[in-house]
Amino acid sequence: MSKTVFVTGGAGYIGSHCIVELLNANCQVIAVDNFVNSVGEENGESAALKKVEIITGKSVTFYQMDLLDITELDAIFHKHKIDCVIHFAAMKAVGESMEYPLLYYKNNIIGMLNLLEVMERYNCYQLVFSSSCTVYGEPTEFPVTENHSIGQNITNVYGKTKYFIEEMLEDISHSNEKWNIIALRYFNPLGAHPSGLIGEDPTKPFSNIMPFISQVAIGRKTVLTIFGGDYETPDGTGVRDYIHVMDLASGHVAALSYLFRKHDRIKVFNLGTGTGVSVLDLVKTFEKVTNTVVPFKITGRREGDISIMYADAKLAETELNWKAKHTLEEMCADFWRWQTMNPNG
Amino acid sequence: MSKTVFVTGGAGYIGSHCIVELLNANCQVIAVDNFVNSVGEENGESAALKKVEIITGKSVTFYQMDLLDITELDAIFHKHKIDCVIHFAAMKAVGESMEYPLLYYKNNIIGMLNLLEVMERYNCYQLVFSSSCTVYGEPTEFPVTENHSIGQNITNVYGKTKYFIEEMLEDISHSNEKWNIIALRYFNPLGAHPSGLIGEDPTKPFSNIMPFISQVAIGRKTVLTIFGGDYETPDGTGVRDYIHVMDLASGHVAALSYLFRKHDRIKVFNLGTGTGVSVLDLVKTFEKVTNTVVPFKITGRREGDISIMYADAKLAETELNWKAKHTLEEMCADFWRWQTMNPNG
Repeated sequence: MSKTVFVTGGAGYIGSHCIVELLNANCQVIAVDNFVNSVGEENGESAALKKVEIITGKSVTFYQMDLLDITELDAIFHKHKIDCVIHFAAMKAVGESMEYPLLYYKNNIIGMLNLLEVMERYNCYQLVFSSSCTVYGEPTEFPVTENHSIGQNITNVYGKTKYFIEEMLEDISHSNEKWNIIALRYFNPLGAHPSGLIGEDPTKPFSNIMPFISQVAIGRKTVLTIFGGDYETPDGTGVRDYIHVMDLASGHVAALSYLFRKHDRIKVFNLGTGTGVSVLDLVKTFEKVTNTVVPFKITGRREGDISIMYADAKLAETELNWKAKHTLEEMCADFWRWQTMNPNG
Repeated sequence: MSKTVFVTGGAGYIGSHCIVELLNANCQVIAVDNFVNSVGEENGESAALKKVEIITGKSVTFYQMDLLDITELDAIFHKHKIDCVIHFAAMKAVGESMEYPLLYYKNNIIGMLNLLEVMERYNCYQLVFSSSCTVYGEPTEFPVTENHSIGQNITNVYGKTKYFIEEMLEDISHSNEKWNIIALRYFNPLGAHPSGLIGEDPTKPFSNIMPFISQVAIGRKTVLTIFGGDYETPDGTGVRDYIHVMDLASGHVAALSYLFRKHDRIKVFNLGTGTGVSVLDLVKTFEKVTNTVVPFKITGRREGDISIMYADAKLAETELNWKAKHTLEEMCADFWRWQTMNPNG
């Protein structure tokens, strides 16, 4: 596409994988990150992005910065001619968001508002925003289409920040026809780049399913906790729409390409596979693919968790010409490759 | 009560009237305002607050400042020992909020987040927040109780900022038991202090009903526009719950007193009279009370307006020991006194 893309949260899990695909699509990438969600950083450089440069043989311009610092943000837009923005940066730990709501509202909302203000100032109106299927709350119809109501019964502050920002983007897109925005509602990203060089290693106490499974398999943890075995699902465990992070990454390239092809002011797309998989299915698939044993215990439901969530993925297929390609087996194999190549993250 | 109350938006219409009641209740008042909604300011002093000092014979500590400047806000909390906060400051023009959503989100949301952050820093957890009946959207049951759903079908950005902030306050109150918050959902404030010294003179192109009626009556405008004569109401015009601004003011004193008596983390109260009055009724009452003629024309409905909105006011009566006392006639008479004493605002 040969566009210059400003990527916030570029050193994070989804950001770094997306940058691989952006570079492969011949984009120039200016990435920023405050390293809140990242590990292995030194002297303001991102270890993950160094790996991305190895994978792609191309270079990334990187700045360590915080979106709350609007002066620094302005300086980057002043220095570079930016064509479009992909905004990944956000605090994302669901449990933590309930403990520190003010921190989450501050970081996620003010970060977004600062970015919008600076974009407007530099006449840059093409934006892809990382939203989440959590905006649907506890869905009432499956598969969940983009027309499902949003904002009702969202059980955590993280999800509310995504919902509030979607509403804000809706309003600003109506107020000024120059805006051209896509909000991508992610389902459950898993896996890693097939090179094994980059993956997901959460810095904080976490309960993301894949790192948890994987760390039990490699012996960093002893037993996997599955929250809730009494949901109204085939095997009683929660059902999710797991999507390979490289599919998610290519979905962003498809979204950018759409923005430069069409001007709809604002569009929203699910990024999922369209298939619901139970937690237990995921564990079994992981064990089979990696030839490991993952001891697990099933405990009570976790507050804020819902039973079933999977996408209707047709809209993205029709309009973005994008479809998830990777299988659950690949998600497990690729994550495991990364885990074994980087046993300590 | 002899508390030190920090009042944001203190120079505004509701803020200045509330400060009269706070001073009458023996509170110390530290007021701030950025003068975005005010007129007649000179050298960082508030004309309205000078009048408040004349009315009460007491003094107000005032700073011209913007809540977006967190450093300055911190300095005020550092200088004064503040017991509690009443947060009026907000941009409030419905139409303007649709034109400049980014400005509204920035001012109202970041202003609130900065205030919460600084309050926490100074161990000040008592807050009264100015919310609005607009959070109810288009209500489905009347009178509207505090348990009515909120956040659905809110037709303007101003109302959304109030809704988002209520949600944030709900979340922070759950995260930290020290918080003690009351959100007051105002219905339609009218009238002025009976002295005629302070009132409402919007700085921006406005369509608030009372200033509009009054400026037609005094000859600053030629004809009153009533938006919509085909609503499903007795006379076809919209029905609202008009409340005297001095009742609203005493409601805030009652709310503060509640905060120092009880610790519920968060409570929400309607501040209304409980009576629905049509726009046409209001105009007729105004003409009768003031012995004026107000020519009007009825045009099409205004986008975003709803047909009927009036409060169930019982909860505030039971729990705050507060009830609106002033009649519609008094609202008209008091506003008219202010208008005739201040023909040019």
